[in-house]
Amino acid sequence: MRDTPLRFGTPLSPSAIRVMLLGSGELGKEVAIALQRLGCEVIAVDRYAHAPAMQVAHRSHIVTMTDAAALRAIIAAERPHLVVPELEAIATDLLVEIEATGVAGHFPEIIPTARAARLTMHREGIRRLAAETLGLPTSSYRFADSFVETQTAADAIGYPCLLKPVMSSSGKGQSLVKSAQELKAAWDYAQHGGRTGAGRVIVEGFIDFDYEITLLTVRAQGTGGEVETFFCEPIGHLQKAGDYIESWQPMAMHPVALEKSRAIAKAVTDSLGGRGIFGVELFIKGEDAWFSEVSPRPHDTGLVTLCSQRFSEFELHARAILGLPVDTALRRPGASAVIYGGMEGKGVAFEGVAEALRVPESDLRLFGKPESFLKRRMGVAVANADNTGEARARARRVASSVRPVKA
Amino acid sequence: MRDTPLRFGTPLSPSAIRVMLLGSGELGKEVAIALQRLGCEVIAVDRYAHAPAMQVAHRSHIVTMTDAAALRAIIAAERPHLVVPELEAIATDLLVEIEATGVAGHFPEIIPTARAARLTMHREGIRRLAAETLGLPTSSYRFADSFVETQTAADAIGYPCLLKPVMSSSGKGQSLVKSAQELKAAWDYAQHGGRTGAGRVIVEGFIDFDYEITLLTVRAQGTGGEVETFFCEPIGHLQKAGDYIESWQPMAMHPVALEKSRAIAKAVTDSLGGRGIFGVELFIKGEDAWFSEVSPRPHDTGLVTLCSQRFSEFELHARAILGLPVDTALRRPGASAVIYGGMEGKGVAFEGVAEALRVPESDLRLFGKPESFLKRRMGVAVANADNTGEARARARRVASSVRPVKA
Repeated sequence: MRDTPLRFGTPLSPSAIRVMLLGSGELGKEVAIALQRLGCEVIAVDRYAHAPAMQVAHRSHIVTMTDAAALRAIIAAERPHLVVPELEAIATDLLVEIEATGVAGHFPEIIPTARAARLTMHREGIRRLAAETLGLPTSSYRFADSFVETQTAADAIGYPCLLKPVMSSSGKGQSLVKSAQELKAAWDYAQHGGRTGAGRVIVEGFIDFDYEITLLTVRAQGTGGEVETFFCEPIGHLQKAGDYIESWQPMAMHPVALEKSRAIAKAVTDSLGGRGIFGVELFIKGEDAWFSEVSPRPHDTGLVTLCSQRFSEFELHARAILGLPVDTALRRPGASAVIYGGMEGKGVAFEGVAEALRVPESDLRLFGKPESFLKRRMGVAVANADNTGEARARARRVASSVRPVKA
Repeated sequence: MRDTPLRFGTPLSPSAIRVMLLGSGELGKEVAIALQRLGCEVIAVDRYAHAPAMQVAHRSHIVTMTDAAALRAIIAAERPHLVVPELEAIATDLLVEIEATGVAGHFPEIIPTARAARLTMHREGIRRLAAETLGLPTSSYRFADSFVETQTAADAIGYPCLLKPVMSSSGKGQSLVKSAQELKAAWDYAQHGGRTGAGRVIVEGFIDFDYEITLLTVRAQGTGGEVETFFCEPIGHLQKAGDYIESWQPMAMHPVALEKSRAIAKAVTDSLGGRGIFGVELFIKGEDAWFSEVSPRPHDTGLVTLCSQRFSEFELHARAILGLPVDTALRRPGASAVIYGGMEGKGVAFEGVAEALRVPESDLRLFGKPESFLKRRMGVAVANADNTGEARARARRVASSVRPVKA
């Protein structure tokens, strides 16, 4: 990890700190805003025009994110100081190469590290790191490349089990498989839901957990100048078919389980290295914690931090990657609830926003995505309250008051 | 005032709510961010390239803001739903005309109203409204168009008195004149400091006030659907040569003075009409309050609300102009301190940002202005604490740790 520039120059001038976002969705949009407020020059990259982060960036590029040659050309032309992946499915081998040898004599810093991006691109890389290299508690698991292999794996793991594409984000393509009869449908869904199409899956033993958490973990410059680890309060979340639909912070936890969770998160993030925020997902049962997954970047369940923390996960990420100090303090219990597209179509509109925002201590984001799908995340409602139960009820009320309509 | 669109469409599509900012400085930048987060399409307009709000807008136009023909052409081409002035010195007669008769068959809403923009463009319009039409307490005053007239006016008003250009923003060109000997220098400064060059001045009687406040006043949709008036906690501020250098919230006030201030603010903003936030400046002495000025838009001393309120003045403005409900709650005592350019030049950089942000509960904005002047506001530090005294000390420490350097 090289030193970041310590001078905050003027955007669109030679003194600028140039930051390139690889992936420009709703999480990237908030990172872009945080960077803009710190006077950085923001270059947004994604596979489609008018992606959310592009709308608040200085400029943008449209490119297939797994196209190494196209991505290299953009990095060579833009010469960013920082390259910040926002999603998994990018040409991570290119990032490894650029980190090692530069591109056209320029050495951008890959956030948090190229190795972290490569390992977390696939569930296999990060799972083997956590379970085999670091010896952390995880569910049992096997990998499979065909339905026949999946049957063998599931028989060995036992039912119920989880089936997930090795490469997908936000739980897309995941199924809980209760019996052998359900395996084929789960396999088909995994082939469909994965980011880069058909392929390898992971079969995971089912942990009969009490609840899941996301532990946002920040590697940032400490007072002494070295990188230190900071934890946000744990986030609870509700998922449907592997997709997050609600999250809240703080999640009440047994102190021993929290301590174990932090130890696991520190071990994983220490190994991945670099600077930035990580979304560490864990299963919790009583006093026990199991590592599930990690994203070396802001996490979708962390959208709740837009209202619950002094600095959102996006602001923490921006600060950490720029070598600035962080403050992970909770501000007030909060919750988030996803606003779905609810329909297919371009240029949709939303009604009921004014009524929605009459809910006390509420707020929302409409991401401005050009195209809506039935289950596409188009916005998020957030709300605070004295406790997370009330905050969840409020956030749900906001989200359910916003009605997508044909434009 | 027409109804705003109640549907929040998709930016860069026909369903978008298009908002045009006339003036694209640091206040506009935060308004643009608030609008972007609500899924609006933002068009930033100002007299120079790469102005702060342009950097977070969907697109921008460079135009002399007092050039009515050029401005009309841009409004006709863009067909914004809302036109949001960010500064005084714009072609307000054009706004009056457009509000009345539209442009090319399109009727944008002028925020808060064209009349408010026109009246507040000149200190004369708003002063006569407050003192003569509404009968509100103000300092004594006279207007003058030459140095000779200014001498006559100052003699009538008496010393000390204040001399201000009728057209300027943020206290530029203002002087406290203690004796007739100082009048010429003050006249010269007013001619230099006014936004649109030489011209008319106002000579104001000096009120021996205890302190000044900004009372942010929001006209927004209430629960019943009609426009209601909401007040933020009062903001105290420190000025030097008429320029704000520090502000804090809440300013401790005698309840009677606060009640009078709110009554004055309500009378003025009721008369100006429309929806949006207003920065009402008042002089306070004991239980008494005098109207000083009003901006029908976010106020520079209100930058403190970035840390002190649940919603900043920029978010409140965005919500109010879109017909959404507002929540003016204070979150925690806070303060702001201006970060000056400290030098002349393009593309300057800032050092010491990481040290600066080690101050507890602090944050900052670097506006990204392309060119620095010695006394140009290039950023702002904000900080919270248990009380405004400590918050001010913290904000000052942050601001003084940030050092501008040649790039």
